[in-house]
Amino acid sequence: MKAVRVHAYGERARIESVPDPEVAGPLDVLVEVNAAGVCRTDLHILEGQWADKSGVSLPYVIGHENAGTVREVGSAVRNVEPGDKVILHPLVTCGLCRPCRSGDDVHCENSLFPGIDTDGGMAELMLTNARAVVKLDEGLRPADVAALADAGLTAYHAVRKAVPLLYPGTHVVMIGAGGLGHIGLQSLTALTPAEITVVDRSPEALKLAADLGAHHTVTADGGQLEAVREITGGKGAHVVLDFVGESGTEDEGVAMTRNAGSYFVIGYGGAVNVPTIDIISREINLIGNLVGSYNDLDELMTLTARGKVSLRTRTYPLGAALEALDDLDHGRIPGGRAILTS
Amino acid sequence: MKAVRVHAYGERARIESVPDPEVAGPLDVLVEVNAAGVCRTDLHILEGQWADKSGVSLPYVIGHENAGTVREVGSAVRNVEPGDKVILHPLVTCGLCRPCRSGDDVHCENSLFPGIDTDGGMAELMLTNARAVVKLDEGLRPADVAALADAGLTAYHAVRKAVPLLYPGTHVVMIGAGGLGHIGLQSLTALTPAEITVVDRSPEALKLAADLGAHHTVTADGGQLEAVREITGGKGAHVVLDFVGESGTEDEGVAMTRNAGSYFVIGYGGAVNVPTIDIISREINLIGNLVGSYNDLDELMTLTARGKVSLRTRTYPLGAALEALDDLDHGRIPGGRAILTS
Amino acid sequence: MKAVRVHAYGERARIESVPDPEVAGPLDVLVEVNAAGVCRTDLHILEGQWADKSGVSLPYVIGHENAGTVREVGSAVRNVEPGDKVILHPLVTCGLCRPCRSGDDVHCENSLFPGIDTDGGMAELMLTNARAVVKLDEGLRPADVAALADAGLTAYHAVRKAVPLLYPGTHVVMIGAGGLGHIGLQSLTALTPAEITVVDRSPEALKLAADLGAHHTVTADGGQLEAVREITGGKGAHVVLDFVGESGTEDEGVAMTRNAGSYFVIGYGGAVNVPTIDIISREINLIGNLVGSYNDLDELMTLTARGKVSLRTRTYPLGAALEALDDLDHGRIPGGRAILTS
Amino acid sequence: MKAVRVHAYGERARIESVPDPEVAGPLDVLVEVNAAGVCRTDLHILEGQWADKSGVSLPYVIGHENAGTVREVGSAVRNVEPGDKVILHPLVTCGLCRPCRSGDDVHCENSLFPGIDTDGGMAELMLTNARAVVKLDEGLRPADVAALADAGLTAYHAVRKAVPLLYPGTHVVMIGAGGLGHIGLQSLTALTPAEITVVDRSPEALKLAADLGAHHTVTADGGQLEAVREITGGKGAHVVLDFVGESGTEDEGVAMTRNAGSYFVIGYGGAVNVPTIDIISREINLIGNLVGSYNDLDELMTLTARGKVSLRTRTYPLGAALEALDDLDHGRIPGGRAILTS
Repeated sequence: MKAVRVHAYGERARIESVPDPEVAGPLDVLVEVNAAGVCRTDLHILEGQWADKSGVSLPYVIGHENAGTVREVGSAVRNVEPGDKVILHPLVTCGLCRPCRSGDDVHCENSLFPGIDTDGGMAELMLTNARAVVKLDEGLRPADVAALADAGLTAYHAVRKAVPLLYPGTHVVMIGAGGLGHIGLQSLTALTPAEITVVDRSPEALKLAADLGAHHTVTADGGQLEAVREITGGKGAHVVLDFVGESGTEDEGVAMTRNAGSYFVIGYGGAVNVPTIDIISREINLIGNLVGSYNDLDELMTLTARGKVSLRTRTYPLGAALEALDDLDHGRIPGGRAILTS
Repeated sequence: MKAVRVHAYGERARIESVPDPEVAGPLDVLVEVNAAGVCRTDLHILEGQWADKSGVSLPYVIGHENAGTVREVGSAVRNVEPGDKVILHPLVTCGLCRPCRSGDDVHCENSLFPGIDTDGGMAELMLTNARAVVKLDEGLRPADVAALADAGLTAYHAVRKAVPLLYPGTHVVMIGAGGLGHIGLQSLTALTPAEITVVDRSPEALKLAADLGAHHTVTADGGQLEAVREITGGKGAHVVLDFVGESGTEDEGVAMTRNAGSYFVIGYGGAVNVPTIDIISREINLIGNLVGSYNDLDELMTLTARGKVSLRTRTYPLGAALEALDDLDHGRIPGGRAILTS
Repeated sequence: MKAVRVHAYGERARIESVPDPEVAGPLDVLVEVNAAGVCRTDLHILEGQWADKSGVSLPYVIGHENAGTVREVGSAVRNVEPGDKVILHPLVTCGLCRPCRSGDDVHCENSLFPGIDTDGGMAELMLTNARAVVKLDEGLRPADVAALADAGLTAYHAVRKAVPLLYPGTHVVMIGAGGLGHIGLQSLTALTPAEITVVDRSPEALKLAADLGAHHTVTADGGQLEAVREITGGKGAHVVLDFVGESGTEDEGVAMTRNAGSYFVIGYGGAVNVPTIDIISREINLIGNLVGSYNDLDELMTLTARGKVSLRTRTYPLGAALEALDDLDHGRIPGGRAILTS
Repeated sequence: MKAVRVHAYGERARIESVPDPEVAGPLDVLVEVNAAGVCRTDLHILEGQWADKSGVSLPYVIGHENAGTVREVGSAVRNVEPGDKVILHPLVTCGLCRPCRSGDDVHCENSLFPGIDTDGGMAELMLTNARAVVKLDEGLRPADVAALADAGLTAYHAVRKAVPLLYPGTHVVMIGAGGLGHIGLQSLTALTPAEITVVDRSPEALKLAADLGAHHTVTADGGQLEAVREITGGKGAHVVLDFVGESGTEDEGVAMTRNAGSYFVIGYGGAVNVPTIDIISREINLIGNLVGSYNDLDELMTLTARGKVSLRTRTYPLGAALEALDDLDHGRIPGGRAILTS
C-alpha cells in the first residue's frame, strides 16, 4: 500500500509503497483509511521532538487522526464488521487495567498510539483493535470527522470535565480560538449554560467565535486580563480553558481564574509558575487535560451527527501529503484542518 | 478585659486591658474565650507579613483559633444560648452569598476574619456571629479542641476533598507530619481505606505517624522520591497532600503524583513550577486548599468527640501569652500546640 | 391592605382588608407584591387537603408564588434595599442548619412557607426574610416570573439534579408537558445535550413541546410505552421525569426507565409500587424531587433573563383573585398560568 | 471432570462426570475451581424460580461464587497465566459496550453469568474470560474468599455507592445482619465514618455486629422503627441499607429514612409501595443495587488482604455438594457460608 513514512528526523517524510498490514491477533481490526488529519504534532515528529518520548523505530507511518472503513476483523471481534464506517480512537487499549475499566482508557497501562509509537493512518490501510473503533452515524463521512479523533477529542474532553462547574450564572473563559478552541466552544454551547468569553489575537477567529455562540469576545492585545475582569464583575471566571498554554497565557489564565475556580491546561509549550501561597489563599485548581476517552469520542460523534459540532476542513489526496504538511507548516491552512483522503 | 494586642509590626505583642466587646447586631454572639491556639501565623502577623493582605488597623487583638463559652447573644440568634460551649469557625460569614449558600463559606463575599482583620480571641472575650459557632459535644473541652479551629480544619478540609479519590487500593502520600499533618493523618484513617505513606525529616514525627496508622513512613533524607516510587509500584501516589509547600516539596510532591493523580497544596511559602507539557501529558491536577467550611468543622468535631482525632497541646494562662509566642518562635513546642487558657 | 384569605375549608376565599404586615425582626423584608401566581395547590388548600399537613390557623392569606418590590428591610439586611425588584424563594429559612449551609435550604430545619403555613402573597404586601429574596435582572418584570417561584422552580430543580446523568447519547423522557413540564423542557434544552421525548395526552401540549425543542413527541393514547421503547432502541430512557405522578404514570414511568437508569418523581397523587426484585435486578433508582433551593431559583432567573425559559401567563388584578381561582378550577387557563397583579 | 448439575427443576442436583471444558476463544481462561460458594440462589435455581429468567438449557453446572487456579489461557490473554490464584467476577463481559467502558460491567450488553445461564463453578474446572479474573494477593486462599465473589460483592457495591452520603455525623441503618450484612458492615467501617445501627431479629447476629463495630444494635421485635427514630434524634437515617427486602422491611426501611435521605434495596422478595406524595414531600431516594463491578471486586479483595473484611465459612469437599445444599436448605449453616473445595 501507499504510506507516508518518516525515515530520519529533520528530513521530509516520504510517500512510498510498503507491505499491507495484516490482521494477526483476535481483536485486530484492519481499516481502509478514508481520511487522516494532518496535525501540528506531525510536524513536531518530523523535527524529532518526539523521538525520545515515543521511542519509535524508523521508518514508520505517521497519522494519528483517522477515520475509514473496516476491511477485516480478527476472530474475536464482534462489535464491527467489514464495511462499517468508523472513526478511530487514537489509542489501542487493553480493556483489562483499572483505567480501561473506569472510562479512562487514555491512561491504559498497556496501550499503543498509532502514528506516534507505531504505524499510523497516513496510508491506505491501518491496523487498530476492537476497542478503538467508533461506528459512524449514517450521516457522517470519514473526511468530515477525522480531525475530531485527536484534536477535537482533546477539546471535548476538557469541556466535559468542566461541565459540573458550569451551571447558569457561571463564567467560562477560553484562551485561544483556533482549531481546538472552536471545537471547545461548540462543545461548551452544547453541554453548558455558562456565559462564554473567548480571548484570541485574531479578529477572524473572534468573529467566528461570536458566530458560534460566544457571549463575549476579547482581543488579546494586552488588555485582555482587564477585559475579563470587567466582564466577570471583577472576580474572574469560574473556569478558564487555556488552549494555548504558552507565551504568557499560563500567567494570564491563572490570573483570570476566580477564587475557588479552575484553570484547565490544554495547550502546551510554556510553564505554570505560581507561588503556593496564591494557590492556597485563592484555593484555585490547575487541571491537566490529555486527549479523551473512547466514551468522550463516542459522545462527540453524537454531537457531530446532530450538527452541534462541525469543523472546517481542506482535503488533499493521500499522494499530496507532503504538500499538505508544507501548507500547514507555512500557515497556509488558516482556521481549518488539512485532511488526507483516499 | 485582658487582651493580647499588636501595636506595631516588628515589636512584641502587648498584654493589656481593653474595653469589653459588646453585642451590637442581632446575629452577634459574645464568647468567653476559654482557649485560644497559638499559631505560626501569629508570629508572621507580628513580623508584619500580613500587614498589606489584612489591612487591619493597629492596635488589634490577635488569635484566630478559639473555643469558649457563649456569654451573650443578639436578638435574632436562635442556635446557641448563654452557657453553651462552642468552638468558633474562623470566619464570620454572611449566609446570603452563593458560597455561603453552597457550603463554601470560606469564600463568603462579605466575611470578617477575627484575629487577622479584626479583633480575635487572645483575650477574655471575643465577638463573633451566629453562623460561626459550633456547639461542642458534652465530652469535649475548649482547651482540647481550640487548635482544631484553623490548623486542624485546614488539614481536615484537604482530606475531605480527597475522599472520592481514595478508594481501596489507592495510595496517598503526606509530605510533612507536624501539627497539621497529624490531624490530616487521623482524618485519612477515619475517612478513607487508602494506603498511607508519610514523608518527614523528623524520626519522632514519623514514629508518631506510624503509631497513628500510617502504613509506610519515609525519612526525607534525599531518597524520598525513590522510596515513594518503590512503595507505589513505580507509579506514584493517586493523591499527594503537601503540608509543607516550600523548600522543594513542591517539585517532589508533583513528581510523587501518579499520572491522572492530584497534588494538594496545603502548606505554603514556595512556588509550583511545572511545564504545561508535563501537566497535560501526565494529566495531573494541582489543587489549592484553604481553611475549611463550617460543615467541615462540624464534621471534625464529630470525629474528635468519637476519639478519632486528637491533638497534643501545652497550655499557658492568657497572661503568659508572650512566653507562649516565644516558645513557639524558638521551637520549644515540638510536635504539639500551645493553647492560651482563661 | 387588601388580601385573599381562607376563612374556612370548603368555602370560597375572601378578598378583604387586613392590617399591613410589619418589619419586626432584623432580617425581615417587607415586599410589595406585584405578582402572585395562582396554583392548583391553592385550590387544594381551599378544599382542606393541606389542613393537617400545614397546621395553619385560619384565617390566613394564601399565595406562594410571589414577586414584587422591596418596601422596607430589617436592621441587619444588607443584600436588598427598598425599591429592588425581587422574586421570592418560597421558603423563609434559617441559614444556620446543615441543609441551609449545604445548598439544600428546602430541608431547612426551621423554615416557614408563606401561603402554606403562614400569610402568603395574594395581598398587597408580604413579609419574608433576607434569605428568600432574589434580585431580578433589569430585563425581568415580576408578572413574568412570579409563577417560576414554585412550580417552575420544582421543574428546574429536578432537571438540575439529572444533569450528571444526561450526557450526549442519553435519552430523557418527560411525562406530562403542562406548566411544569414546559419549564422542565426548556431547562433540559438549556442544560443538557440529551435526546428528549415528551409524552402527553394533549396534542396542543405536544405541539408546543416540539416547538420548544423536544426531539420526539408521543401521544399518551395507550401505546406510549411501546413508543418510548422504540425511540430508545428497546432499552428505555436513562432518565424519566414524571411531572404527573398519578393515574398510572408511576408504573409506566418505571417501565420506561432503562436498567441502571433513574425515574424522577415530580408530580404526585398516585403511588409507586415495584417489587424489590425488579428494583435490584434492574438496578434502577427512584428519585424524589421537592421545590428547589435558593441557588436553583437564582440559576433559573439567569436562564430566564437570557430568554432561555419563558412562561405563558394570563394576568388578573388582585381584586379579581376569586375569578382567577374559578377559572383555574374550571380548566379555563389551558397551557398557561394565572397571575394576580397589583 | 466431576460436576454438580441440574437435570430437572424440583429435583436434587446430581454429582456426575462430564467432559472437561476447553479453551476455545482467544480471551478464554480455564480455571481449576478450588472453592465454590453455596448460595441460597442455588436452592432457588433447583426449585425452578430462575428457569424463565435465565433461559438456561438443562442439564448444566451451577455455582456462581468461584475462586481457584488458572490452568490454561487463550491466545490473547495477557493479564493472568497458568498457576495464578484468582477469584472470578461472576459475569463474563465484553469490554466493548458503554457500561463495560464506564466501570459498570454488571450492565454489560453482551454478558454471560456462569452458574446462572451457562456452566458454573461447582465442578473441578470452569471456563471464564480474561475480564473476569482478579489475581489474589499472596496472603489470600481461594476457600477464604470464594463467597465474596457474589454475595460479598453485592454488599460491598451498595456500601461503595453510599460512601459520598456518609460523612462524619451521618447515620446509616443496616436491616439484616446475616452473611451479606456482615460484609456490608465491615465495608462500612472500612470506608466511612458514619454512625452505624444494625437491625436484626437474631441476638447472635447482633452480637457479632457489635463485635464488628456497629455503634448501635436494635432487635427487630416490633419496636425497631421507634428505636431507630430515637437513635437518630427523631429524624431517621441518612442512608438505610436493606439486606432483606421483604416481609415488611421495605416499609420500615422507607420509614427509617430521613427526609432527603436514601433507601438502598439489596435484599429482595417483597415490594416497595410508596405514595408519590411521600416520595416528593420527603424528597427521598430509592436506590437499587445489583452485584458489583470488577473494580468493586478488586477493591474488596484489597480490603480482604488487609484483614478488614473476613467471612466465616464451613468447607465441604466437592463430592459432598448435595449435603452442603441440604445443610443450607435446612438452616444448618447459621451465620456462615458453605464452601465446596477441590
